[in-house]
Amino acid sequence: MEAFNHRSLLDIEGLTRADVERILDTAEAFLQVSRRPVRKVPTLRGKTIINLFYEASTRTRTSFELAGKRLSADVINMNVSASSVKKGETLQDTCRTLEAMHPDVVVIRHGASGAASYVASKIGCSVINAGDGMHAHPTQALLDAFTIRHEKGTLENLVVTIVGDIAHSRVARSNAHLLKLFGSEVRVVGPRTLLPAAVDSIGVRVYDRLEEALEGADVVMVLRIQRERLGGALLPSLREYARTYGIGPRAMQHAKPDAIVMHPGPMNRGIEIESVIADGERSVILEQVEAGLAVRMALLYLFAGDTAESPAVGEAD
Amino acid sequence: MEAFNHRSLLDIEGLTRADVERILDTAEAFLQVSRRPVRKVPTLRGKTIINLFYEASTRTRTSFELAGKRLSADVINMNVSASSVKKGETLQDTCRTLEAMHPDVVVIRHGASGAASYVASKIGCSVINAGDGMHAHPTQALLDAFTIRHEKGTLENLVVTIVGDIAHSRVARSNAHLLKLFGSEVRVVGPRTLLPAAVDSIGVRVYDRLEEALEGADVVMVLRIQRERLGGALLPSLREYARTYGIGPRAMQHAKPDAIVMHPGPMNRGIEIESVIADGERSVILEQVEAGLAVRMALLYLFAGDTAESPAVGEAD
Amino acid sequence: MEAFNHRSLLDIEGLTRADVERILDTAEAFLQVSRRPVRKVPTLRGKTIINLFYEASTRTRTSFELAGKRLSADVINMNVSASSVKKGETLQDTCRTLEAMHPDVVVIRHGASGAASYVASKIGCSVINAGDGMHAHPTQALLDAFTIRHEKGTLENLVVTIVGDIAHSRVARSNAHLLKLFGSEVRVVGPRTLLPAAVDSIGVRVYDRLEEALEGADVVMVLRIQRERLGGALLPSLREYARTYGIGPRAMQHAKPDAIVMHPGPMNRGIEIESVIADGERSVILEQVEAGLAVRMALLYLFAGDTAESPAVGEAD
Repeated sequence: MEAFNHRSLLDIEGLTRADVERILDTAEAFLQVSRRPVRKVPTLRGKTIINLFYEASTRTRTSFELAGKRLSADVINMNVSASSVKKGETLQDTCRTLEAMHPDVVVIRHGASGAASYVASKIGCSVINAGDGMHAHPTQALLDAFTIRHEKGTLENLVVTIVGDIAHSRVARSNAHLLKLFGSEVRVVGPRTLLPAAVDSIGVRVYDRLEEALEGADVVMVLRIQRERLGGALLPSLREYARTYGIGPRAMQHAKPDAIVMHPGPMNRGIEIESVIADGERSVILEQVEAGLAVRMALLYLFAGDTAESPAVGEAD
Repeated sequence: MEAFNHRSLLDIEGLTRADVERILDTAEAFLQVSRRPVRKVPTLRGKTIINLFYEASTRTRTSFELAGKRLSADVINMNVSASSVKKGETLQDTCRTLEAMHPDVVVIRHGASGAASYVASKIGCSVINAGDGMHAHPTQALLDAFTIRHEKGTLENLVVTIVGDIAHSRVARSNAHLLKLFGSEVRVVGPRTLLPAAVDSIGVRVYDRLEEALEGADVVMVLRIQRERLGGALLPSLREYARTYGIGPRAMQHAKPDAIVMHPGPMNRGIEIESVIADGERSVILEQVEAGLAVRMALLYLFAGDTAESPAVGEAD
Repeated sequence: MEAFNHRSLLDIEGLTRADVERILDTAEAFLQVSRRPVRKVPTLRGKTIINLFYEASTRTRTSFELAGKRLSADVINMNVSASSVKKGETLQDTCRTLEAMHPDVVVIRHGASGAASYVASKIGCSVINAGDGMHAHPTQALLDAFTIRHEKGTLENLVVTIVGDIAHSRVARSNAHLLKLFGSEVRVVGPRTLLPAAVDSIGVRVYDRLEEALEGADVVMVLRIQRERLGGALLPSLREYARTYGIGPRAMQHAKPDAIVMHPGPMNRGIEIESVIADGERSVILEQVEAGLAVRMALLYLFAGDTAESPAVGEAD
C-alpha cells in the first residue's frame, strides 16, 4: 500500500484522490471497531492527542476524543475560551508549549481562517484542522465523502447539491473541493447574500432556484443556518428562508428518487430541513456521525500510528 | 442469579425489591475495588460511557466518571450549558447523535422532569438518570439504601425521617419510593410551603413538628436547602429555618440512640445541619459518598457488562 | 536509595536538599518516557489522581493530567469556578468528599494562600500544591531547578536573578527557597512597588537597577506581569515597565555570556521579555515545559507509586 505522505491535515486542497481513498479505506476498517462489543483497539497505546478547541463544539470534540480513546491513545481536552485568549499568550506560544509536552497529534478548532496552517508551520507534530473560521473543515468533508461512498458505492459522476449559507460555510468549501477531485458535479444554491463573491472559482455551479438546483441530484447536502451569526441584513426572516430553501418532501421531488439527504448538524428542524425528511428513509444524518468517528480514527491512526504495518484493528488486548 | 432485566435506570418506581437487592449486592463487591491499592478492574474495557450533564454537578459527575474509569471503560464528559441549549439542537437530536457514536451507557442529568425517560425512549443504549428536575434521582436513593443497609443491616422495618424541602427534592421522592419497597416507615417534615401538595400519595407520613417526626427514628435524612432556588415567599429566613428544622444535638435526642444521620451534600453547615452532628459519630455522610461510587460501578456493570458472568471484581490485568 | 518521607508537597520549605535531589533524579528518568515512541509506563495503573483547580490554569492542569496519564493513572479534572464556590460547600467538605472516593493524590490550585496546607491537614491522601495564592508554587520551582541543573550541571554556586513582580509571585518565593538550599545566590529586581516589604527575610538580595542585578548572572528568571491583576497604582505603564525591566539583548549583555533565560509562561512578549530573547539560543523556556511534565511524573510516582521498587520506567505493558 502506498505510504501516506502527510504530516498534517489542514484542508482538502492538500490531498490527492489517492490520499482520500486511503483515508476512506482505513476508516472502513475502523467503522467496525465501534460496532463490536469491545469498542477498542490498542493501536495508539502510549500516543498523546491534544484537542485544542478555541470554539466550542461538543459534537466534534466528542468525536475526536472518542476516536482517540477507542484507539487507546491518551486524550487531553483543552477548551480555550475567548476571554482567556485576550489576556493570554499568542497562539504560537500556546502551540510551542504544547509541543514541548510531546503530543503526537494536535487537533485544533479556531475561529480564524488559517489558524490550523499557522500552527502546523510552527510545530513539529501532526496537526488536524477541526474547523478554522470560514476556511476549511476537512474532516467533515471526509466523513461526508465516506457516507456518500457507503450509500452510493462511488464518489464519481454524482450530482451533489449543497443548500444554504455557502458564503460562511467551511463545510461547503471543503466538500466542494473533495467532490471535484472525483469528478462529481457540485451545485450550490442559497440566497444571493449567502453566496460567496467568487463562488465560481471553486468550480461549482451556482443556482438561484432550489428546484432547479435539486433536479437530478444524487445527494442533497443541507447546511445549518447560523441563527446566531446572521442578522437581518443578510437573511430577511427565518420563515422566509424555510419557505424558499428549506428541504421538505416537495423540494425532494426534484432530486433523484434514491437521493440521500445529509446535514452536518446540529439541525434547525423546520428551518433548513423539515423533520419528515430529517427522520425519513433518505436521511443519512446519523450515518454521518458514525462515519465521523471512523474517519477521525483513521486520521489519528495515519498520523500517529506505525503506518509501516497494516491498520491494527484486531480485538483489544 | 436472576438476570437483571432492565436496559435503563430512570426512577426507583421501575425497580422491584429484588432489583434493588441485586444492585446493592453487586455494589458491595465493587466497594472493595476502591479500597484496594490497585483501584481498577478490567470489567468494562472497550465500553463507552457518556456523561451528559445539562446541570452542573461536579460531585455526581465525578462519581460517575471515576466509577467508569475504575471499571476500565472509556468515559466522555459532555457539559452542556444552558446558553448552548438555546441556540442548539433538540435533546432528541443530541441523543441520537450520541447514539450514533455507539456508547454503551448514557448518564444524563437535566433540569427538566422526565428528560431521562424521554431520552431512553428515543435511543437504543442504556440510560442512567443522574437527576431530572424535581422528578427523580435514583442513584442517590440507591446509595442511601446501600449506606443504610450497611449501617443497620437491613432496609426493613426502619423508621426513616426526611427533613427539609420535600417539595423540590428529587432525592426525597426517590428515597421514599425505595424505602417503601422494603416496608420501612417514611416520615417527612419541613415547612408547609416546602411540602408537596399530594405528599400522601407517595405513601409517607407528614409531620409539622420536627421533634415528633424524629421520635424513634432509625435514620435521619437531612435535605439540602437550595438557597439559590428559594426566595422569601417560601422560606421566611434561613435563621428561622435553622432554628425550627436544623438538625443539631437537641433534635437528635428524639431519634433512637443509634440513629444515623445522612445528607446528600453539599451541606449548608449551620443551616439544615449543625457541624457537631455532620462531623459526629452518628454521621454517615462520607460513607454515602463512598457508597455512591460503589453503586454507580454496580449500575454501569449491570448495564454495560457481560452479566452472564458474575461480576469480575478480581485484580486488574 | 533513601526513602522519600513525605506524604504531600505543599511548599519548598518542607523539603531538604536530599529531597529535592531525589525528585530531580526521578524526573530525569521520566523525562525519557515522553521522548519515546510509546510515551507511557504502567507505573500508576489503578491509581487515581484528582486535579482540583479553583483557578483556571490550562497549562499547569494539562501538565499534571498528561503526567498522570503517561503513568497510566486515572485522572479526574475538577474545575471549580468562583461562582460555584459562593453557593457551594466549604473547601473542607469538598476535600473530605473527594477523599471518600479514595484518590491517591489530590492536586490543588487555589487563589487563597495556605489552601493546600489546609486541605492536606484535613484529608488522608497525598496533596500536591499546584499554586496557592501568593504563597507557593513548588512544582514550578522544581521544574525550574530541573532545567537549571540540566543546563548548568549543578544548582550550587550560581547567581540567579529574578526579574519582575516579586511581591505577587509565588514562583519567585518558591524558587528563592529552593535555590538557597543549594547555596546559590538569589537576586531580585523590579519596581519598588512590586517588591515585598520583608523581602530580605527570604534571604535574597534586592536590587533597584536591572543592569546591576544581572551583572554576572548565570540564570535570568523573568516573571510574568499580571496585567489583569495590576492597576495603575503599582505599575505606571506597561511601556515604562518594558523599558526599565524588560529583558532584551541590551540587558542580557550584563549577564554571563552563557547565561540562560527562563520564564514560567505564559509570556507577554514585548513587555517583560523581548521576542529575540524568548526565541533565542539562551532561552530554555520550552525546556521548562518539558521539565514540568517530568517533575510532575516524578512527584506523582513518589506519592502514589510503590516506592519500595525503583521507578518503573520501562516500556509500557
